[in-house]
Amino acid sequence: MLMSELIIKKRDGGKMTPEEIKFIVEGYTQGTIPDYQMSAFLMAVFLRGMDSEETLHLTMEMVHSGEVLDLSEVGGITADKHSTGGVGDKTSLVLVPMVASLGVKMAKMSGRGLGHTGGTLDKLESFPGFCINITHEQFMDNLKRVGMVIAGQTANLDPADKKMYALRDVTGTVNSIPLIVSSIMSKKLAAGADTIVLDVKVGKGSFMKTEEDARKLATEMTTVGKLAGRNTVAVVTDMDQPLGNAVGNALEVKEAIATLKGEHGGDLLELCLTLGSCILTASGMMESQEEAREKLLGLMATH
Amino acid sequence: MLMSELIIKKRDGGKMTPEEIKFIVEGYTQGTIPDYQMSAFLMAVFLRGMDSEETLHLTMEMVHSGEVLDLSEVGGITADKHSTGGVGDKTSLVLVPMVASLGVKMAKMSGRGLGHTGGTLDKLESFPGFCINITHEQFMDNLKRVGMVIAGQTANLDPADKKMYALRDVTGTVNSIPLIVSSIMSKKLAAGADTIVLDVKVGKGSFMKTEEDARKLATEMTTVGKLAGRNTVAVVTDMDQPLGNAVGNALEVKEAIATLKGEHGGDLLELCLTLGSCILTASGMMESQEEAREKLLGLMATH
Repeated sequence: MLMSELIIKKRDGGKMTPEEIKFIVEGYTQGTIPDYQMSAFLMAVFLRGMDSEETLHLTMEMVHSGEVLDLSEVGGITADKHSTGGVGDKTSLVLVPMVASLGVKMAKMSGRGLGHTGGTLDKLESFPGFCINITHEQFMDNLKRVGMVIAGQTANLDPADKKMYALRDVTGTVNSIPLIVSSIMSKKLAAGADTIVLDVKVGKGSFMKTEEDARKLATEMTTVGKLAGRNTVAVVTDMDQPLGNAVGNALEVKEAIATLKGEHGGDLLELCLTLGSCILTASGMMESQEEAREKLLGLMATH
Repeated sequence: MLMSELIIKKRDGGKMTPEEIKFIVEGYTQGTIPDYQMSAFLMAVFLRGMDSEETLHLTMEMVHSGEVLDLSEVGGITADKHSTGGVGDKTSLVLVPMVASLGVKMAKMSGRGLGHTGGTLDKLESFPGFCINITHEQFMDNLKRVGMVIAGQTANLDPADKKMYALRDVTGTVNSIPLIVSSIMSKKLAAGADTIVLDVKVGKGSFMKTEEDARKLATEMTTVGKLAGRNTVAVVTDMDQPLGNAVGNALEVKEAIATLKGEHGGDLLELCLTLGSCILTASGMMESQEEAREKLLGLMATH
């Protein structure tokens, strides 16, 4: 196969075969395909698109570019959550302990701030000495002992995405639905949880500006997640204004703790109840959204 | 200016300003813009296009990326010819001496074979010892003494095109009309002739497969040439079958010599008469195509 011919195929609107996608992702990760060919291909994908099948194959090849976590040894139900990013979005800090306290093993790999949006890792580092870079072994140990872990991506996870994301960032190829889907979902699938809940933000403060785009992204991500055999649910939520009242790393951690103590209500708690219910029902731990919501609210009342 | 933002502008169908095009061509030629950003930009140009104004600015920036020949010291009328390439196309070897013998100074920089099409330089090298790499000074000296020169491109001519063409070749961005126009016309304009005749091939044996594409390419090239102040004429000619009877470097040289001696007619002579008449009339040396054709045919008869 010749990369220049594969670029021409996508440029002319062709559908890439699984073998062709494998050739591209492997070649680029291993360095046999240079940046300048990959960026031309990514621009062709941006302007010509990819269908769900191509997006799934791209995602799966990215998953297998590095280490894939096997969480089965942890036992029980494992879950993960991803937000496409917004302002004041400290949801993970509330949601992860809430759901974990009901017995779901929460295995959450988080990111840094991206553009104007905040990152969970930056927020956690407002605790002096908090270590967000842990090994695979520490990650598994935390999950078994504590029932939850929030940490940075482990070093060998999804190297294809690390390289592709850095290239997309400087070549005008970030805001493409198949490329966003494969970037997010390859990391989630490699991180190993059975149940994945996706919070797709829409509005002025998010990357998706229209509900149509947000719904399309949500649909594509759940399609890929389900085809890959995971319980996947997406929720499209408002990001026309900041979530909660606090914006700023340490302030957001304070607000998250207050919310966990039952001292805060509002949109932040409401979103955590919605996402938490999705995890509890999608994973099969609870029957109905009502039951899940009641159990989650019960946690607040105990404080 | 940020290259990543200029890529996004063209990706979204925007029109590049002269300043933006200057930034891109200068930056890429000097190496401050990396290959991977240029290839993403070229793919965006391929899929989004460029209008005549953008194409002209791109062409002129490429012209000024290197040495620009000033043929005014030669005196009289100077002319150049370009063919988009075909099979059996030995036109330059016949046309250049024919027109030069009528007093037009023919300053022709030729190329190598490209893909399946032949190159004049390769054909000339079938003369043992023929030197196609000459300096700027030798080029000018030949033109003054002999009244014609066919040689390779001088070393410092249009370095932007050399770098861009090599990148386009491996990133699926060759067959784009604005990129073909700027590549061809920047070389022709830098080579300095007052009159430029363009032979745009159409058909199975050429790069343009449809008459529509060939006409569009011809129109864009003449627009750019005229806006740059040169007498520019384009002729769309058939390349559904090889030109003349011979294909192969040495054989084509033989056929060219026989045609000059008046021993051969057919499509090759006919094309040379057409292109020659265009040069003689566009340059203002003769009044009508009929007069020009008669004079050219007269040359054959003297043998």
